[in-house]
Amino acid sequence: MKNGIALTGIKPSGTPHIGNFLGMIKPALELAKDYQALYFIADYHALTTVKNRDELKKLTYEVAATWLALGLDPEKVIFYRQSDIPEVMELTWILACFTPKGLLNRAHAYKAAVDENLEKGKDSDEGINSGLFLYPALMAADILLFDTNFVPVGLDQKQHIEITRDIAQAINGNYKKEILTVPEAVIREDVMTIPGLDGRKMSKSYDNVIPIFESSKEIRKRVMRIVTDSRKPEDPKDPDEDNVFAIYKHFASPADLQRVSDGYRQGGLAYSEIKNALYELLEGEFAQARESYWRYMDDFTYLEKILQQGADKARMISQPKIEEIRKAIGIE
Amino acid sequence: MKNGIALTGIKPSGTPHIGNFLGMIKPALELAKDYQALYFIADYHALTTVKNRDELKKLTYEVAATWLALGLDPEKVIFYRQSDIPEVMELTWILACFTPKGLLNRAHAYKAAVDENLEKGKDSDEGINSGLFLYPALMAADILLFDTNFVPVGLDQKQHIEITRDIAQAINGNYKKEILTVPEAVIREDVMTIPGLDGRKMSKSYDNVIPIFESSKEIRKRVMRIVTDSRKPEDPKDPDEDNVFAIYKHFASPADLQRVSDGYRQGGLAYSEIKNALYELLEGEFAQARESYWRYMDDFTYLEKILQQGADKARMISQPKIEEIRKAIGIE
Repeated sequence: MKNGIALTGIKPSGTPHIGNFLGMIKPALELAKDYQALYFIADYHALTTVKNRDELKKLTYEVAATWLALGLDPEKVIFYRQSDIPEVMELTWILACFTPKGLLNRAHAYKAAVDENLEKGKDSDEGINSGLFLYPALMAADILLFDTNFVPVGLDQKQHIEITRDIAQAINGNYKKEILTVPEAVIREDVMTIPGLDGRKMSKSYDNVIPIFESSKEIRKRVMRIVTDSRKPEDPKDPDEDNVFAIYKHFASPADLQRVSDGYRQGGLAYSEIKNALYELLEGEFAQARESYWRYMDDFTYLEKILQQGADKARMISQPKIEEIRKAIGIE
Repeated sequence: MKNGIALTGIKPSGTPHIGNFLGMIKPALELAKDYQALYFIADYHALTTVKNRDELKKLTYEVAATWLALGLDPEKVIFYRQSDIPEVMELTWILACFTPKGLLNRAHAYKAAVDENLEKGKDSDEGINSGLFLYPALMAADILLFDTNFVPVGLDQKQHIEITRDIAQAINGNYKKEILTVPEAVIREDVMTIPGLDGRKMSKSYDNVIPIFESSKEIRKRVMRIVTDSRKPEDPKDPDEDNVFAIYKHFASPADLQRVSDGYRQGGLAYSEIKNALYELLEGEFAQARESYWRYMDDFTYLEKILQQGADKARMISQPKIEEIRKAIGIE
């Protein structure tokens, strides 16, 4: 017996780097051990920003290929595409009718966009579409439609879960009935924020990432670009102050970690040596996944089949749930 | 060959009076002569205000029974319930992603609610839910999903059609493709605003209505309550200044109208006499419809069957249309 339902939404945003893997993908995949895990590709959420047809399609398939390649087992979890579940959009409307507009005015993502406009001297709502504004209601629908108990999120999403809880409680209260399961946020600790090539947080916007699915040659090149100081191999070094070690430590075995730590402290370890070791570790971790990824990206028919099977499983839950909700509110 | 598709949305708001009949229902039903007419019950729109389960159900059936009783022929037109078309809510989300939030900030219904709050010294968004705010996008989805050409509306809804046109053009422009049909508003002339018992516009909020489906006795009582002046039967009167005549003229035959007008002007016509004549005319017009109405209201199973058949016909249009839209935007 699992401990409840845990839901993970994945916004398509291009091919992943090892920061995404360690910070989000790996912990999310581990959820499936303890929970009935649901994962979905938030393509209708992506539509708030991606207005190019081919790009949106490609981004969606990239997410599917990424997660399957990195170990998501579609037999054990429910893996689906948001847009394949029309009940999500129907519930979004229902929830909107119970979401005070003031609550959305105060939602972080919207407020950040407003603040940016104001800083630039623009109208507060310039360039902001209503999908972005309404997004917390869509997210609430994603969660509430599946009677989700737990939603693992980064700290930046905590407020959206609070909004989801508020809406669910408002509806349960209005109809004096436990129609919706009030979910809990599980805040992902930020220990897994790993540094990029230049020591800042690994992020595409800093161009300091190690991508997972690029060629071995490219990954090697990136690893070699990791910024180190000018100490010579024979100098003793503090591993905790080195950018290479900061990545290496997430992939090495405990025994290797000990040996390499000691090497740093005692001196005699060249940066090129530890970079090579890191490269080898990354190859060990991702070479097979990379192969799978490109095989999947070459076979959209297969990806469609997997997503369709996932949607069928998801709708076994979402269809009776929306019926239950409709009945409770007088829509039938 | 008909002149295109005309769509009429009906917000459930209780049993109708003869002002509703003359001002909205009758002209809407006449559309079916010239257009492929679609009529829908906007129950998901009603959810923005009706938060009581039984009330929402009852309101919906009342609309269905009203329109069927007053002559809507479900064999000739498409008559459905908004909530039976999940594509409407899906398209609402899609449209929201292309609806500048600033456009909704300026929508009349929302602005009116804000102004009312401000007048009362409240927060501008107090008590306003996001469904009300987003309503123009729902209305746009209702219209655009069926490639509607014409939307007959009152003057107060003209702006919402403008918003619909803006959204459709934004999407067609973005994808460089005529995905959505840009509709036109057909403004209903306000000549059909008929006065109530006290001479003000007939409206439930003034408690001055003649309901259509109440008992003969009740209708007679209402007609007798129409406010007249104190002139005696033998005095000559101006028919255009009399509240009874103002209603009578919409139901009388041309010959009777002439005869009664002359009676007013020449004197000798008692108000009680013309009130009786009006009552008889209303009985002639509505007695059978009233009987049908109550028969329908006693047979929700039948109403459900009619609405389901309508939904089946509507989805023959909405399902391929949403597929076309999804394909065009990269959701498939």
